[in-house]
Amino acid sequence: MAKVYIKGVGMTKFDYTQKFWWQFAYEAALEALENAKMKISDIDAILLSAISSAAGPESEHQVHKASMLSDVFKTNVPIVEVPAVCAGGGVAFWLASHLISNFKNILVLSGERLVESITEVTTDRILAASERILEQPEGLIFPVQKAMVWQQYMQKYGGTMDDLALIAFKNHQNAVSNPKAYFYQRPVTLEEIKNSPVVASPFRLYDCSLSINGGAAVIISQEKTDVELAGSGFATDYLLAFLRKDMTHYLATQIATKKAYEGAKIKPEDVDVAEVHDAFTSEEIIAYEDLGFALIGKGPELIRKGLTNIDGKIPINPSGGLKAKGHPISVTGLAQIYEITNQLRGRCGQRQVKDAKIGLTHNLGGNGGTVVVYIFRKV
Amino acid sequence: MAKVYIKGVGMTKFDYTQKFWWQFAYEAALEALENAKMKISDIDAILLSAISSAAGPESEHQVHKASMLSDVFKTNVPIVEVPAVCAGGGVAFWLASHLISNFKNILVLSGERLVESITEVTTDRILAASERILEQPEGLIFPVQKAMVWQQYMQKYGGTMDDLALIAFKNHQNAVSNPKAYFYQRPVTLEEIKNSPVVASPFRLYDCSLSINGGAAVIISQEKTDVELAGSGFATDYLLAFLRKDMTHYLATQIATKKAYEGAKIKPEDVDVAEVHDAFTSEEIIAYEDLGFALIGKGPELIRKGLTNIDGKIPINPSGGLKAKGHPISVTGLAQIYEITNQLRGRCGQRQVKDAKIGLTHNLGGNGGTVVVYIFRKV
Repeated sequence: MAKVYIKGVGMTKFDYTQKFWWQFAYEAALEALENAKMKISDIDAILLSAISSAAGPESEHQVHKASMLSDVFKTNVPIVEVPAVCAGGGVAFWLASHLISNFKNILVLSGERLVESITEVTTDRILAASERILEQPEGLIFPVQKAMVWQQYMQKYGGTMDDLALIAFKNHQNAVSNPKAYFYQRPVTLEEIKNSPVVASPFRLYDCSLSINGGAAVIISQEKTDVELAGSGFATDYLLAFLRKDMTHYLATQIATKKAYEGAKIKPEDVDVAEVHDAFTSEEIIAYEDLGFALIGKGPELIRKGLTNIDGKIPINPSGGLKAKGHPISVTGLAQIYEITNQLRGRCGQRQVKDAKIGLTHNLGGNGGTVVVYIFRKV
Repeated sequence: MAKVYIKGVGMTKFDYTQKFWWQFAYEAALEALENAKMKISDIDAILLSAISSAAGPESEHQVHKASMLSDVFKTNVPIVEVPAVCAGGGVAFWLASHLISNFKNILVLSGERLVESITEVTTDRILAASERILEQPEGLIFPVQKAMVWQQYMQKYGGTMDDLALIAFKNHQNAVSNPKAYFYQRPVTLEEIKNSPVVASPFRLYDCSLSINGGAAVIISQEKTDVELAGSGFATDYLLAFLRKDMTHYLATQIATKKAYEGAKIKPEDVDVAEVHDAFTSEEIIAYEDLGFALIGKGPELIRKGLTNIDGKIPINPSGGLKAKGHPISVTGLAQIYEITNQLRGRCGQRQVKDAKIGLTHNLGGNGGTVVVYIFRKV
């Protein structure tokens, strides 16, 4: 595989502004171009991470998004749309990283107007990512499904709801100093977290990430820069969770992780900072284990000991994560790369992880049916 | 770019059978695996061409198709979904052709249940591929849009409705000997074509391709086989047709074509057989010109002189084309590669083009917003 370098990154603030998905994507792309000191005419191919959130008859009623972007950017280069639910950003970047040997500069971007006025529509769209014959009719929307997984985890390994509260607290604290996070300068106390209303037992409000709007963009290049892609892994898994051997962990994450570490020729203990897919607080603990930062069943110890705080042994989600930065589905994978790139460049101000040289991103789609893991290295 | 070889191809009959999209895709994949003498465990990555036809709340209500295929094939390899409206098959194959340097064998597939019981739903889904603010409210569904283009063409260059009838007649004749075509063994006379009802003036019923169900699959490999990909081109264009300089021709086809010929180091006259995107009969004539088989405005001469018949100078759409084989949107680009592969292998029976050594496919999405052109060569 050809060498892949990060040339520029861009991201909008995540909030509830009402714009079209492509307006968010466009703003993020402009920032990435500026960051890369490039013009759109320097871009040879475009990958768009997109769930169909805005395509349905009940919403923007517009497919053929590649052609829309040809309009937006006034370009005729190859443009490919890639939907992979919550892992869309990661998968679009994965394709770009493989295309780079034939293209000089590739723009990977996404924008998502996830939260519109009609909340049922958003919920219904997200629901369509879980299995339709056996799961959807049982009301297995993601909070419920992930709550069941966590109940099983607690029984099996002894994790507690207090552990989850600590995850939420850490990520909210991190977000306070991230100007692009929804919870920027809006601290949340441990008490508020523990007393928040139950959403899907045992999950409380603060165990769930934020459905939000926003955009992110990454420009990769053949040309050497200050950040390189050192390793990557991509794996899929069955849509139906009960077909899997182990419901409390993600085989796809484990396969992708192994491949990424092998590619980068490093071990988990070499990672200085990671952005992991904390769509629910429990998922961050499971990620600790699947990514090899803790043994299976030992993830809670990391948060109890503060090892994943910004000044800890392995800081996780310094951006605030999906939890407190926000989770605009298809954008998330790229927003993770935005954060890690800035961490490796030492541009994260108060939330900067000291001497970060190796960073990891972990982007998980649906019920772990699509997972992408990247390792970036400061050059 | 690494060498790309066709290892195996598969295709279901195109008809109105009611199955899920993935059942069509699965059947086509089994045939491709058999054709390639491979097992699913030999496949290292999967590309799925998919429009969102079956994903909406009004239909199968199921996104995360990559994870579904992990279930279907019992595999954990990278699986990527690629929607690009009518050009989905071509774009999925394009990605696969670039990924091949890092994967040994890649399966590209699609299945489409385009025609269900609810016809309005299908029409509405296809409508979403045209521009939503200025075109859709004017009722600019594709037959209407393409009819306007052809009216302009007739005024500018002097094409006639009789030319279109000849295109339909040729493609229907070809389909008669294609067992996978919907119109297999069902000949249509020139009189029937000319007297068929008007759909969108000046188009009659037989000027329009068939919305249909079906699946197709192609397996590509690093390993040398009897058919190689000699050249490819991919370009995009604006969603809004009126922003373009020339409405009667497709800039994206022209850019993609130039790149494909350059890659293959051949000229249009070297092509022995082509499958072109005849979603409407007029589009085949425009393709003659954009692909360089005729000068601009001179396309009608080819069909008048019979030069694009199976025994002509440059046989076009020996399969019957979208017109008479059928057009299951996301499947079409792969079905074209299925036909060209079989033509180069000399396996097309009565519709075999003699001594076919170089074949071209042309897959066009929406109003020409995404176009992919391939040149295949017998090794």
